[in-house]
Amino acid sequence: MVATAKQRVVIVGAGFGGLAAAKSLADANVEITIIDRSNHHLFQPLLYQVATAGLNPSDIAQPIRKILAKQQNCRPVLGEVTIVDKDAQVVETTAGPFEYDYLIVATGATHAYFGNDHWEAHAPGLKTIEDALTIRRRTLLAFEKAEVATSEVERERLMTFVVVGAGPTGVEMAGAIREIATRTLHRDFKHIDTTTQSQVILIEAGPAVLPPFPPKLQESATRQLAKMAVDIRTDTMVTDIDADGVTTTMGYIPAGTVVWAAGVSASPLGEALGGEVDRSGRAVVEKDLSLAGFPNIFVVGDVASVIDGANITVPGVAPAAEQGGQHAAACIEADLAGSARQSFIYTDKGSMATIGRSKAVAMIGDKIQFGGYLAWALWGLVHVASLIGFRSKARTLSSWIWQYLTDQRGARLITGDHPTHQDL
Amino acid sequence: MVATAKQRVVIVGAGFGGLAAAKSLADANVEITIIDRSNHHLFQPLLYQVATAGLNPSDIAQPIRKILAKQQNCRPVLGEVTIVDKDAQVVETTAGPFEYDYLIVATGATHAYFGNDHWEAHAPGLKTIEDALTIRRRTLLAFEKAEVATSEVERERLMTFVVVGAGPTGVEMAGAIREIATRTLHRDFKHIDTTTQSQVILIEAGPAVLPPFPPKLQESATRQLAKMAVDIRTDTMVTDIDADGVTTTMGYIPAGTVVWAAGVSASPLGEALGGEVDRSGRAVVEKDLSLAGFPNIFVVGDVASVIDGANITVPGVAPAAEQGGQHAAACIEADLAGSARQSFIYTDKGSMATIGRSKAVAMIGDKIQFGGYLAWALWGLVHVASLIGFRSKARTLSSWIWQYLTDQRGARLITGDHPTHQDL
Repeated sequence: MVATAKQRVVIVGAGFGGLAAAKSLADANVEITIIDRSNHHLFQPLLYQVATAGLNPSDIAQPIRKILAKQQNCRPVLGEVTIVDKDAQVVETTAGPFEYDYLIVATGATHAYFGNDHWEAHAPGLKTIEDALTIRRRTLLAFEKAEVATSEVERERLMTFVVVGAGPTGVEMAGAIREIATRTLHRDFKHIDTTTQSQVILIEAGPAVLPPFPPKLQESATRQLAKMAVDIRTDTMVTDIDADGVTTTMGYIPAGTVVWAAGVSASPLGEALGGEVDRSGRAVVEKDLSLAGFPNIFVVGDVASVIDGANITVPGVAPAAEQGGQHAAACIEADLAGSARQSFIYTDKGSMATIGRSKAVAMIGDKIQFGGYLAWALWGLVHVASLIGFRSKARTLSSWIWQYLTDQRGARLITGDHPTHQDL
Repeated sequence: MVATAKQRVVIVGAGFGGLAAAKSLADANVEITIIDRSNHHLFQPLLYQVATAGLNPSDIAQPIRKILAKQQNCRPVLGEVTIVDKDAQVVETTAGPFEYDYLIVATGATHAYFGNDHWEAHAPGLKTIEDALTIRRRTLLAFEKAEVATSEVERERLMTFVVVGAGPTGVEMAGAIREIATRTLHRDFKHIDTTTQSQVILIEAGPAVLPPFPPKLQESATRQLAKMAVDIRTDTMVTDIDADGVTTTMGYIPAGTVVWAAGVSASPLGEALGGEVDRSGRAVVEKDLSLAGFPNIFVVGDVASVIDGANITVPGVAPAAEQGGQHAAACIEADLAGSARQSFIYTDKGSMATIGRSKAVAMIGDKIQFGGYLAWALWGLVHVASLIGFRSKARTLSSWIWQYLTDQRGARLITGDHPTHQDL
């Protein structure tokens, strides 16, 4: 290969996939531009803790610029992609156009309401810091409004929390709201008893909680949730959501707060790339994670539909996105070195979900499965270790220790303009 | 006095004044309702550090319920007062009506634009957490936009920050923005040089910075600001503010970010009480802090215009509000005990203003005046000690130590829906 001008790599999205790609190319002879519509990389696995007042946004979010400040060949840009012109090899963004030789699309997924977008106003999902602060505000406001409610029916409605979807996020949210009611707020109100009068209902369309987990761990999670008095309703589908509650195939549930944890779809860029997409709008990619017919465009993480070199369907989880980003970087380095690209092979290190204080389930590989205190401790250890930077690790760990010792949640703030005017 | 039903005390506002009143009545035989439109008490003296990404909102804000959880005779209510009916002795709120025997109004002040309310959209003030997050977003976004600006003129405009008003808040904001540019961000951008290309202009209508301070400290503050290259423009009045900059009596200044620290006026409740008010809308009160003709209504803190028992005009600062709240409580206890009320006497413990790293001015009483490192250390000590609760103290102190050692600001997040779509 003849030495030419530096290859320009444009990465769209600075989540787990995009950031891993950028870092993997730190020593490559390329010019990287990484574009994100936020100025921060968000550690999404702990976002539910921001929504439930346990952590501050800045504990789990770092400025992309700061993470990459020392990487000389990488320039972060705050902007949103509007058009990808595959023939001209240009990405148009709100911050101007960027030409590329290689493009890595890592724009992730967002919550999906399956054609019922009007549900979003009543049942926010949990993908961004703004989402988390909205859910935090509504949850805390519900108790405040219940305290001054004048009718018993209204008070009961306000103290009913419905979580739709019993995947890891739904289970975590249900457990955390129950803990707020029983452990954090139980002494703070004079008129309502948050422990006995509030209820958390977890709705799942499938037959069990934590659908992707093996039956043994599903049963363990069910037992642990029941111990916290979370009301689990499996085989139940949501058919409508309005300002006052949730309509399901098993009847209407009046509720003051509804959280959506039921479905995700790929970012619109998956479809906008113009290739084949799956049912969730994810771009179907080749074994090397490139787009069919465009070997210079890679799609990684939740926006890609991947069957890897071992014929495994790659799940939409953070480690898979990181591995995808690293693989795309490796393919570019292979091209530059004139060697052959490898197929992507996903390494599954295991799965975990936390439920509450000393409550969780974990599996390492297929064989080792366990629940309870040990799973919870492992979950905490792995998540703190995965956070970027000493400051985030230290603040998250100290917040958890504080919460464990005092049952207080440090970020119990209702924010947003004129909170008293906000509708529930 | 014959023992009758418990006296009902309604406190409006849970800032320094209202909270001090509630706590002072902890052992009194009364029923207290404390109403605030936020769920949190805010430590306003450090709010500028939230606006400049140094602290998290929850470091300086605590849930009112949590602060008062152990006080059995006090019930916090989240609500906004709409009407005070002095004859019927009822406060109407968004959370329902509350009857009172005693009313303590402690609703504070808000920023005032002297009849130019349309300036607010371009030049936010700094009174609430939402204000602080707005200023934080705009300040950080300005650098992001400058990085991708296509014209030199626009880049220069985006990197110009104007602070209107050189009181303590204005001086603190100007110093902190300059530190963000020179110490925090200076290695993070590839196209702009934040140290040399950005400028902070501090506009003051009067002849010197820190108007209420003695000349010696004004000169010290001016020297310390100049050392940081803050461009001080005294004897300059703002005549208009638009989306692109600030018009002053000394010419037009194109600016990407404008912060309003120039004026405050009392909360509207000061006037709504129907008594005499001063130029800033503050309710003029008697020597015992009660409203003329209504000995059962007290007005304390920034919403009151007070000339105390020693004929001192009481300033609008946190310690004065606290002392006022304590005095109102003492008057109620005197009434209950059948003894005479005392006149309010304000105790001035001193004043401080911080400018930046190792830069501040302080005075203790009238005599002891000093600036620089010692003033800065004292400022930090007093403010950490004044925060409510161990957690806030620990987190604020650790954030400051972290920032001092690394020059990094932990809360460097641009939040708000779709930040890339926000106008500057």
